Amino acid sequence: MAEDTLSAILLLSCKDRIGLVSRISHFIFERGGNILDLDEHVDPVEKIFFIRISWDMKDFSIPPEELADAFSPLAREFKADWKINFEGRKVRTAIFVSRYDHCLREILWRHSLGEFRMDIPLILSNHPDLEPVAQRYGIPFHVFPVTLENKAEQETRELALLAENQVDTIVLARYMQILSPRFVERYANQIINIHHSFLPAFIGSKPYKQAYDRGVKIIGATSHYVTEDLDEGPIIEQDIIRISHKDTINDLIRKGRDLERRILVQALMYHTEHRILVHGKKTIIFV
Amino acid sequence: MAEDTLSAILLLSCKDRIGLVSRISHFIFERGGNILDLDEHVDPVEKIFFIRISWDMKDFSIPPEELADAFSPLAREFKADWKINFEGRKVRTAIFVSRYDHCLREILWRHSLGEFRMDIPLILSNHPDLEPVAQRYGIPFHVFPVTLENKAEQETRELALLAENQVDTIVLARYMQILSPRFVERYANQIINIHHSFLPAFIGSKPYKQAYDRGVKIIGATSHYVTEDLDEGPIIEQDIIRISHKDTINDLIRKGRDLERRILVQALMYHTEHRILVHGKKTIIFV
Amino acid sequence: MAEDTLSAILLLSCKDRIGLVSRISHFIFERGGNILDLDEHVDPVEKIFFIRISWDMKDFSIPPEELADAFSPLAREFKADWKINFEGRKVRTAIFVSRYDHCLREILWRHSLGEFRMDIPLILSNHPDLEPVAQRYGIPFHVFPVTLENKAEQETRELALLAENQVDTIVLARYMQILSPRFVERYANQIINIHHSFLPAFIGSKPYKQAYDRGVKIIGATSHYVTEDLDEGPIIEQDIIRISHKDTINDLIRKGRDLERRILVQALMYHTEHRILVHGKKTIIFV
Amino acid sequence: MAEDTLSAILLLSCKDRIGLVSRISHFIFERGGNILDLDEHVDPVEKIFFIRISWDMKDFSIPPEELADAFSPLAREFKADWKINFEGRKVRTAIFVSRYDHCLREILWRHSLGEFRMDIPLILSNHPDLEPVAQRYGIPFHVFPVTLENKAEQETRELALLAENQVDTIVLARYMQILSPRFVERYANQIINIHHSFLPAFIGSKPYKQAYDRGVKIIGATSHYVTEDLDEGPIIEQDIIRISHKDTINDLIRKGRDLERRILVQALMYHTEHRILVHGKKTIIFV
Repeated sequence: MAEDTLSAILLLSCKDRIGLVSRISHFIFERGGNILDLDEHVDPVEKIFFIRISWDMKDFSIPPEELADAFSPLAREFKADWKINFEGRKVRTAIFVSRYDHCLREILWRHSLGEFRMDIPLILSNHPDLEPVAQRYGIPFHVFPVTLENKAEQETRELALLAENQVDTIVLARYMQILSPRFVERYANQIINIHHSFLPAFIGSKPYKQAYDRGVKIIGATSHYVTEDLDEGPIIEQDIIRISHKDTINDLIRKGRDLERRILVQALMYHTEHRILVHGKKTIIFV
Repeated sequence: MAEDTLSAILLLSCKDRIGLVSRISHFIFERGGNILDLDEHVDPVEKIFFIRISWDMKDFSIPPEELADAFSPLAREFKADWKINFEGRKVRTAIFVSRYDHCLREILWRHSLGEFRMDIPLILSNHPDLEPVAQRYGIPFHVFPVTLENKAEQETRELALLAENQVDTIVLARYMQILSPRFVERYANQIINIHHSFLPAFIGSKPYKQAYDRGVKIIGATSHYVTEDLDEGPIIEQDIIRISHKDTINDLIRKGRDLERRILVQALMYHTEHRILVHGKKTIIFV
Repeated sequence: MAEDTLSAILLLSCKDRIGLVSRISHFIFERGGNILDLDEHVDPVEKIFFIRISWDMKDFSIPPEELADAFSPLAREFKADWKINFEGRKVRTAIFVSRYDHCLREILWRHSLGEFRMDIPLILSNHPDLEPVAQRYGIPFHVFPVTLENKAEQETRELALLAENQVDTIVLARYMQILSPRFVERYANQIINIHHSFLPAFIGSKPYKQAYDRGVKIIGATSHYVTEDLDEGPIIEQDIIRISHKDTINDLIRKGRDLERRILVQALMYHTEHRILVHGKKTIIFV
Repeated sequence: MAEDTLSAILLLSCKDRIGLVSRISHFIFERGGNILDLDEHVDPVEKIFFIRISWDMKDFSIPPEELADAFSPLAREFKADWKINFEGRKVRTAIFVSRYDHCLREILWRHSLGEFRMDIPLILSNHPDLEPVAQRYGIPFHVFPVTLENKAEQETRELALLAENQVDTIVLARYMQILSPRFVERYANQIINIHHSFLPAFIGSKPYKQAYDRGVKIIGATSHYVTEDLDEGPIIEQDIIRISHKDTINDLIRKGRDLERRILVQALMYHTEHRILVHGKKTIIFV
């Protein structure tokens, strides 16, 4: 991981053609940028070009605010999906929680150690329970109780709050509400969820019970971007832990807590370091 | 793992009650048996008692052939499911294959090193392709081509061959035929299959394709006992391997080969060391 | 894991001989104890018998306080090393820390969720830094600054404090002081340390630096009981994490934090559930 | 993994400076090469630039034989260490074995499935035992018995045989002889060894015995390039497997066999796909 001076990170995908790396790296070179890290891959089946490049902005001739405009003609020519971020500019991230605290605590503690390149302007919950945890880290905590009746209205208020705080990314840290399509669409590929099973196994709300009943020898967890199709979004990270016949459902839940926080943290790290490209229903992760 | 003198292994499950270990261990002690390994567990939810005990038969006052008769009154009193095996007596195992050779080779090579407590009186296939592999290890290879029309008839012949060879256990080492209920019933909890996915995800015949299309970050494999419900039998062993966006379906198949043979070998080792109790749809594995 | 009613746990090792399980289980049975979990193993090389048995004390005819006395004649006859603990009685554990907070936080948070069968009467440190963490969980925090001159005197005061609080077990949660032989002897096999390398590789105080310089592809951590020989005590648990050429020493330290807390927690769980027998320089762990 | 048409793979390292990617990719672009995969990394501490690029040679204006000459002026300007290989041209690999067959079998079987981009012109051994395995795959097997007296002479004959067969790479698949400095120097960073421990723990010839005696909970294996300092060469790949107190030394050896062949195969795959740059005592692996 490079030091925290300002550097630009370009994520780009387009139909493959000759000269893409040369054109892009030349664009950077002729403006004085020194490339720090570059990972490029062409999908051999679909012939799609994927790239992540980061370069030092220290001696770059264009200021950060003008970089996107300067690059857009090239991107247009390539008919590319692309985004430029800056490593020194932190991702503004809101955390949504309900009552389980393990993912929230893990994120806040690591954040306090400087492990994430993000700011957390707010934590949002449908329950007041975890406010003390937020307070300890000095982060504003907003409670939006949700019922069937007020859901649409509450989401409108939530979206306003997020906009006001210039939130880029939302982490559902075991948030037990389903977001509406309108909400999901507003933050496409910017909402990260943790599902407590190895998707696509055990879709639904009681995966540990299902895993116990099936007698599996391994349980998993999955972090993914949220899409309208519940539990069907692009997968960012998955991992597993071994269990045995001696484990009760409570043991599964306990072991699962470790998995969930570890995986959600990894997914959030990839996201805030701009290492993820979403392509169709899949993710390309530049590690 | 103990040395290969003759020792008895009792696997037993019954409703829990006081005195079970004492009664069983006393039975062994008063006949001169020295216990080598004992693992007992009471399911805290269902209150079922599970035990595996092995003891040295060297100074035991009852010969192996009479042991089951001697023990059965106690087992009857406990209304137990039970079985006694002998470590020095090898499990007679038939291997069923089709065209993939990786699981077969892995088993035969390890077998040649003495890793399994089994004899392999025969290998059975619906294709002649792998006969040379069998020949190299001096194991009879029988071809039973199966069509829709002759399936019942061929199974009858297969069952006769298995009976004639006193086969206890069948390993489906990527055998691409579905066994009939009659066949499965005859070898209940004695047929071990390897399924090339992390069950219950990706049930069916093309799991790697499904995993690729879904964009998972991990692929798995599952070894289980065969029951009438395809892919639903008690799970013996599962494991996973990480994949990335760079992996094509062929890479998944290649990585999966390693998983499949490793997991099938582990399941077969547990089975031939009499470490598995089947209880309902689950396995208790004494490791 | 069984429910939290009072149950007894016997850990015992002795030279193997016939009838041990029968005699011990009969002792339990005739006093009305129902065995919940039993794991026994005879080392095939050294012929040593190791056992862990837990049984329900509900209908047991001897009260917990008299159990050790009642059992000791049998143990004497077997010339056994043994200990009886009670699952419903919590292990009194002191945590020693310096400035790193990750292990301490992990233990306290899990403790607050009821994951450990222990009480934490006090936290002890040579620095005041982590007092706020202790306060949040309402645990007394004692600071004993240590210098070359006052070390012996401070240890005397520490031992008095531990005795006064009836402490059974000490966890060195990245405590950066070396305990004197006198201290270690007083708490033989009761002090759990976490060393930030895969012992015996990278003994010493800068293992991540050494690992980085050597260019290993994996880093590890080791939890062990503390003995007079530094980094040589019986190993309880070890695990590893993969690293790559992209990881700086800081990344190793960050990844190591996760390993350290996970492994220390696992070791502490085994210890407080009375799953560990120390035999010579090794541990037998009944899982 | 790309399809097997001819593509070039450049591995290059040099002191970092601005414009390196641009200059190199332009070199490829202006000669009609389409980049398939590019991974670049700058060491943030040492400021060294590392790159691996592969490109399609189909429409490239320079034939493969002239490519190195064409590229060398650029490389000279950068004062780079570099090498160009071709994916469609297989690495000529000799396998050295003694009596253990597990690594040899694993490599030959996978090779027969097309998993490696290499040819195996010969297998060399100091014992005749494994000749039948070689014969089965139709590979010439040469026996060079080595004694203290004839070692230098035998190595001279071995080197001649290797030269005659245009061997690029040597795999020591549990070859139990130490190569002389002269031999090692001739094949610098081209000899791959498998050591049966997690280096730097348990250096020497009996690591499983040492691991058993120390009571570790994990055993490892390490594949590395051979240098004059035994067990000190740049590490390519490492992995571990869990063991318990129930495992005897023979169990460690058995479990170790699986580790050794898996890790050696992985290292050999990286090497033959030209994914490894050696820098000082470390490897950079482009995965």
